[in-house]
Amino acid sequence: ITSKQPNVGTTIFTVMSQLAAETGAFNLSQGFPNYNCSPKLIELVNHYMQKGMNQYAPMAGIMPLREILAQKTADLYHIHYHPNDEITIVSGCTEAIYATMAAILHKGDEVIVFEPAYDSYVPSIELNGGKPVFVTLTAENDFSIDWSVVKSKITKHTKAIMLTTPHNPTGKCLTQEDLAQLAEVVRDTDILIVSDEVYEHIIFDNRLHLSPASHPELKQRTFLCGSFGKTFHTTGWKLGYCLAPVELTAEFRKTHQWITFASPTPMQYAFADFMKEPDNYLSVRNFYEEKRNKFINWLKGSRFTLTPAEGSFFQMVSYNQITDESDYELAVRWTKEIGVASIPISVFYHEKYDNKILRFCFAKDDEMLEKAAERLCRL
Amino acid sequence: ITSKQPNVGTTIFTVMSQLAAETGAFNLSQGFPNYNCSPKLIELVNHYMQKGMNQYAPMAGIMPLREILAQKTADLYHIHYHPNDEITIVSGCTEAIYATMAAILHKGDEVIVFEPAYDSYVPSIELNGGKPVFVTLTAENDFSIDWSVVKSKITKHTKAIMLTTPHNPTGKCLTQEDLAQLAEVVRDTDILIVSDEVYEHIIFDNRLHLSPASHPELKQRTFLCGSFGKTFHTTGWKLGYCLAPVELTAEFRKTHQWITFASPTPMQYAFADFMKEPDNYLSVRNFYEEKRNKFINWLKGSRFTLTPAEGSFFQMVSYNQITDESDYELAVRWTKEIGVASIPISVFYHEKYDNKILRFCFAKDDEMLEKAAERLCRL
Ligand SMILES: CSCCC(=O)C(=O)O
Ligand SMILES: CSCCC(=O)C(=O)O
Repeated sequence: ITSKQPNVGTTIFTVMSQLAAETGAFNLSQGFPNYNCSPKLIELVNHYMQKGMNQYAPMAGIMPLREILAQKTADLYHIHYHPNDEITIVSGCTEAIYATMAAILHKGDEVIVFEPAYDSYVPSIELNGGKPVFVTLTAENDFSIDWSVVKSKITKHTKAIMLTTPHNPTGKCLTQEDLAQLAEVVRDTDILIVSDEVYEHIIFDNRLHLSPASHPELKQRTFLCGSFGKTFHTTGWKLGYCLAPVELTAEFRKTHQWITFASPTPMQYAFADFMKEPDNYLSVRNFYEEKRNKFINWLKGSRFTLTPAEGSFFQMVSYNQITDESDYELAVRWTKEIGVASIPISVFYHEKYDNKILRFCFAKDDEMLEKAAERLCRL
Repeated sequence: ITSKQPNVGTTIFTVMSQLAAETGAFNLSQGFPNYNCSPKLIELVNHYMQKGMNQYAPMAGIMPLREILAQKTADLYHIHYHPNDEITIVSGCTEAIYATMAAILHKGDEVIVFEPAYDSYVPSIELNGGKPVFVTLTAENDFSIDWSVVKSKITKHTKAIMLTTPHNPTGKCLTQEDLAQLAEVVRDTDILIVSDEVYEHIIFDNRLHLSPASHPELKQRTFLCGSFGKTFHTTGWKLGYCLAPVELTAEFRKTHQWITFASPTPMQYAFADFMKEPDNYLSVRNFYEEKRNKFINWLKGSRFTLTPAEGSFFQMVSYNQITDESDYELAVRWTKEIGVASIPISVFYHEKYDNKILRFCFAKDDEMLEKAAERLCRL
């Protein structure tokens, strides 16, 4: 069997989580909380299982969940989607991105990818016959986007631009100015936008979440990919969605229906009920802002330099005042020696560019965060 | 946006289930039970949610579930897989098949597909750059496979043979003779086998389920794709698996990790426990054999001709003594006029070959089956 992905190994998340488990380190690497979701949400899943909602959901998802998503997106962002033919429930945002790439990419199409890039983007593009074209963001420029560079990468083969806001791993959020520049870059082209917004509700310091779809010139070309996992502390339920104008949704559903067909039914009913109370998703903002602030505070005695994350539940820290080791070596060594696991940022670059930065996940209980910070302060 | 699948519409399952819902017909079309799964299984999911098993499962699935699958496959079929690197849990057998095609197909590769074919096979092949090569089975030959025809379709581009046993929609099961002939066809080639075995436990009249992987010459080239949904009345939980030798599993996981990454955690723990009692999956055989027998019995007064299904929860019936309408028209008309929905077999052929046969799903409570049969007997 000839490998289609000869260079693909195990994801960094698996590698670091396993190392953390083996060594008993605090696992601040892979992005998932170490506390449980709301008991009310569990009760709802249980209720719907008891009621017999255990068979196939409709291919596009159950209507009440699509309706509440439409309402939330209209209320919060003034972006309007029809539940019937513009909203599709899928098995996690990872599937949403993969199914989008499968739907839109023809052999040789190019997709602009900003790196550091979440690790599924490039394989999703390549497995579907596309070619990633990288725009490299670095600590030097505070990971902000120079849109003239983006413009210079556009060719007649550019099919799409992949965006992430709030961004993983950098925590950066798109601004109105970014959206305006993006709109200018794609004006008079057919370039599509694929937007990963799984951290939409985890955004700090009174920032507004700005989806590309919120820009009037961009909505028609945007696949808005989201997830329930990060917002509701249910990363293991693997439920996400794709919002897109009717023509794009039609193509999206054609691939989704062959990839997973449908997604877990009892969880869909539970979220449809649970989201009726907006505080159930809005409260996550303060919850994580407090954690970020505490974590940064506990790191005050360290020799790290850092800029507070704008969003997401990841904090990047720069360690070049401590050592000049590579971030990968350091992440492994510190997991073993001081018992705190992190993610090296270089793995998110196709040529392993090393900013001397590690990513720590602060979706952990305060006790773990404080103890981890204590250890990091000793360095 | 240029469609990659210009001819793909909505799946027949969605079309017929919707028509059944709109008209209030008995829905014997889409394959799912109208009764609930075991309360014990629900209790287990609830238990693990309460315990906090709501975050990402490992990419390959939780180890206890992989272990019990390994044990079951060894005990029942004497096929041995290592839980560590030969078993992967995925989001339904549909994903298992899609991820397999994504892993093995290079542009221009051919896959032999027997039709009638489950509707996701061909799009999964084509979206991944492959070309289906059809072997057409018909009622005339009792839907049995002429292996000399298969042999004649093999070219230097043949990458795989797609099999289904027990078969949907025909209910046919592979025999030892089929496996021997298959082994001869692929001997001295690198041809892979992708085997859809979601009905492995629903097999009648003391037949043995015969996976291609049970043949010593075939195991090394087989992706055995299965599911929990049909066996445990949980089609809506979307949990399946792929068993394959280590080299094949390595490639399979590389695509799975970008397609859905992982699958629902609490359900995985629940099945790992529930399957410790073999009767929980073995009992489904008698359960459905009784249903098949009752349904056939209740149809005795009809003008259909039929051969009892060998396996699966589908019964085909031939209606050419009643009308010469096309099966598609008839399925729609009878849903509306007599209130019994079915699936026309022609949709499973790439050129809509019409055997004058409808498929009825008997995974329904006895009351519905009896009433549906009563209506069908009036025709
Ligand atoms: C799919 S596992 C990775 C979880 C995550 O989003 C992250 O750690 O970045
Ligand atoms: C994925 S919906 C179809 C269910 C099924 O397997 C069938 O009806 O054949």
